[in-house]
Amino acid sequence: MKSFSIAKSRRVRSSPYTSRIEKQGVTSYTVYNHMLLPAAFGSLEESCKHLKKNVQIWDVAAERQVEIKGKDAAKLVQLMTCRDLSKSKIGRCYYCPLIDDNGNLVNDPVILKLAEDRWWISIADSDVIFFAKGLASGNKYEVKIFEPNVNILAIQGPKSFDLMEKIFGKKIKELKFFGFDYFDFDGVKHLIARSGWSKQGGFEVYVENTKSGLDLYDQLFELGKEFDVKPGCPNLIERIESGLLSYGNDFDNEDNPLECGFEKYVNLESDVTFLGKEKLILIKKNGVKRKLKGVQIDTNRINLTKSLKIKDDRGNFFGELRSACYSPHFKKVIGIAMINEPYCEASKAGILEIEGNSFSVKVCDLPFI
Amino acid sequence: MKSFSIAKSRRVRSSPYTSRIEKQGVTSYTVYNHMLLPAAFGSLEESCKHLKKNVQIWDVAAERQVEIKGKDAAKLVQLMTCRDLSKSKIGRCYYCPLIDDNGNLVNDPVILKLAEDRWWISIADSDVIFFAKGLASGNKYEVKIFEPNVNILAIQGPKSFDLMEKIFGKKIKELKFFGFDYFDFDGVKHLIARSGWSKQGGFEVYVENTKSGLDLYDQLFELGKEFDVKPGCPNLIERIESGLLSYGNDFDNEDNPLECGFEKYVNLESDVTFLGKEKLILIKKNGVKRKLKGVQIDTNRINLTKSLKIKDDRGNFFGELRSACYSPHFKKVIGIAMINEPYCEASKAGILEIEGNSFSVKVCDLPFI
Repeated sequence: MKSFSIAKSRRVRSSPYTSRIEKQGVTSYTVYNHMLLPAAFGSLEESCKHLKKNVQIWDVAAERQVEIKGKDAAKLVQLMTCRDLSKSKIGRCYYCPLIDDNGNLVNDPVILKLAEDRWWISIADSDVIFFAKGLASGNKYEVKIFEPNVNILAIQGPKSFDLMEKIFGKKIKELKFFGFDYFDFDGVKHLIARSGWSKQGGFEVYVENTKSGLDLYDQLFELGKEFDVKPGCPNLIERIESGLLSYGNDFDNEDNPLECGFEKYVNLESDVTFLGKEKLILIKKNGVKRKLKGVQIDTNRINLTKSLKIKDDRGNFFGELRSACYSPHFKKVIGIAMINEPYCEASKAGILEIEGNSFSVKVCDLPFI
Repeated sequence: MKSFSIAKSRRVRSSPYTSRIEKQGVTSYTVYNHMLLPAAFGSLEESCKHLKKNVQIWDVAAERQVEIKGKDAAKLVQLMTCRDLSKSKIGRCYYCPLIDDNGNLVNDPVILKLAEDRWWISIADSDVIFFAKGLASGNKYEVKIFEPNVNILAIQGPKSFDLMEKIFGKKIKELKFFGFDYFDFDGVKHLIARSGWSKQGGFEVYVENTKSGLDLYDQLFELGKEFDVKPGCPNLIERIESGLLSYGNDFDNEDNPLECGFEKYVNLESDVTFLGKEKLILIKKNGVKRKLKGVQIDTNRINLTKSLKIKDDRGNFFGELRSACYSPHFKKVIGIAMINEPYCEASKAGILEIEGNSFSVKVCDLPFI
C-alpha cells in the first residue's frame, strides 16, 4: 500500500493537542469535521491490544459541538432527531440519529442536555450546524446556533477509571454510563461524561478552558505511568469488533435509520414532531430492503478505501462492504456491510472480489464481540 | 517538517480518477467535501511554473454539486446568496457568497443555472446540502435537493485552449469566461464551463458519465503530449498570487462578505430576499472593522498549518495570517490575512513571530499579480 501525506492548512484545523500528539508519535491522520483526527500511532493491532488492557488518552477534538441555545432550543433539537427526547434529563447524553425530510440520516451525534434551553450536539462528520441554521431560519425559531470552543479529550480503556479517580477523586467512578457532570481540576470546572468511541469503558472531557485542558493532558500522562498510559485514537479494529458505526463509512445521507439497526432510537409511536416521521412510518410499514450487518471474510488482509461490491454465487448483488479490518481476535477480516434482502440473515454467504481474487463472505450480527 | 500519512476510508471518498493520479505521482492529499483532493504532485514550485506555461489536468471531483430542482428552486437558491440572481441566465456560472441569518459566510460556490427550475451549486468545503435541506424544510419549499454523481475534471493553463480544441473542436474556444455549454465526446454530452481554480485560464468538465469521463481523462493526456500536459491540482502558490480565496482557509462562518472583499456580490440595494440582508445593511452602515488583505512577509520559508497572529510594533493585535506560501515570483513569502482597522491600508507594517523569530509583514492589495 502506497502512502500519501496529508497537506495541512488552516482549513484542516489542528487541535490544541496536535503539537503534543505529534511529539508522541502519531503516524497518520484522517479529517473529521474539517479537523485533524489522529488515525494511528504506529500499529493498529498493537494499539487495539493496549486499549483493551490499559488506558489511552485520545485527542478527539474533531468531535465538534453544535450549541443550540434559547427559547426554541428543545423544539429544534427534537425536530432533527427521530428519538423521543420529551423525557430527557439535564446531565444525560443521548445517542440520536438526525434525520432529514426524506427519512434519511444526516448524522448520528451524542446529544447533551445542558439545560432545558441549552444543548450540545456532539457530532459525527457532517456540518450539522448548517442543517440547524437552515431549519431555525425557515421555522423562525428563537435560537442561537454556534460552535463553542470545546476540544474533547477521551480517556479510554479498563484502567481509565483508576486513572481518572487519581485526578478527580472517587466521585468520578459514580458517573453512570452516558451521564455527565462537572468536575474540578486545579480550580477549573470541566464537563466530563462517561462515554467514548470504544467499548472498553472510559470518559470524555469536554474541554472549554484550553489552558487547563492542556495541563490535564500532561497530568493524565504523568499520573498514568503506573497504568501504562499511551496516546491513542479511535481504533478501527476495536470499533468494528464492537459494532460502533461511523457516519460516512457505514451509513450516510442515502440510508435510513431502520436500515442501520437504529430501531431503538426511532420513536414513531411518540407524539413528538420530527423531520421525516411520515416517511419513516411508511418505510417501516413496507419493510426495509437492506440492512447493515457484520461480515466475516476469509482473508487475513484488507485495505478498504471505498465501498466494495459483494455478490452471491450466481453473480447477483448481495451487498456493499463499507468498513473492514483484520481482527486479531477472529484471525480473519471482519467488516460492516449494507446487505440486501434476502441475504440479511446471519450465516448467509456471499463472494467478495479483491484484485482478481475471490473471498467468501459470511453475514453475522453486530456487534461481533 | 514532519509528514503524516492520510488514513483512507469510505468516509474520505476517493474519486473516479484516484487510481489514475496515484499512478501519475500524486504525493499528498487534502480532504475537501469529505473527499480526497490532490494537494501536490511533488514540488509546488515546479508545478506552479508548469501551470503558468503549459496545461494541467486536475482531479477536482471534490468540488461537489448540490442540485436544487423544482418549483421553488430559484427562490431557495436566491435565499441563500446575497448576490442578486434575478437577471441570471441559463448557461452561465455565478460566483456567489452564501450567507446565514447572522450575515456570515457559509460557503462561496459557483452556481450554475441549468434551467429556471434546476441549479447546481458547485461548492467549497462545507455541507451546503444540509443548509439547503434545512431551509427548504422550514420554508416548506417544493424542491428536491441532492448530490448528483458529478466528478469535475479541470483543464488549466494557457495551453488548455489548444488542447481542448483538439478534442472538442473550435466551438470550445468561443465559450466565454464563466459560460457553460454541452460538448460531445465520443457520443456522450459533457457540460463544460470556462472556469477553474486558477487564473491561468481553462475549463471544467462536469463529468456525469463516469466511464466517458475516464476515457476523456486518458485522451487529454494522450493528445496533450505536444503541450507538455501534466497532472496537477489547485496550486497553493498560484492561488495565493492570484488572490483566489479559499473557504475555511481565508474566511469562514465567523466572517462576513464585506470583510472579505466580496462587495461586488453583496447586492443590498436589490429587491430580492436573502438571508442576513438586514444584518449586512447594518454592518455596511457601521463599517467593517477588519478586512482580508494580501501580506508580504520578509522570509523565504513558511509552513502554515493554522492561523498566526500578527502584531504591530507595540504588541497590539494587527491581524491574523490565514494562508501563506513562498512565492518564487516575489522571492519572499506572501499570504492572505484578516487585518484589523486601522492597519487595512496597503503598506502598513506589522510583525509576525514564528518559532521565536520576528519577521516584518507588509499589507498589500489583492490579487498580488
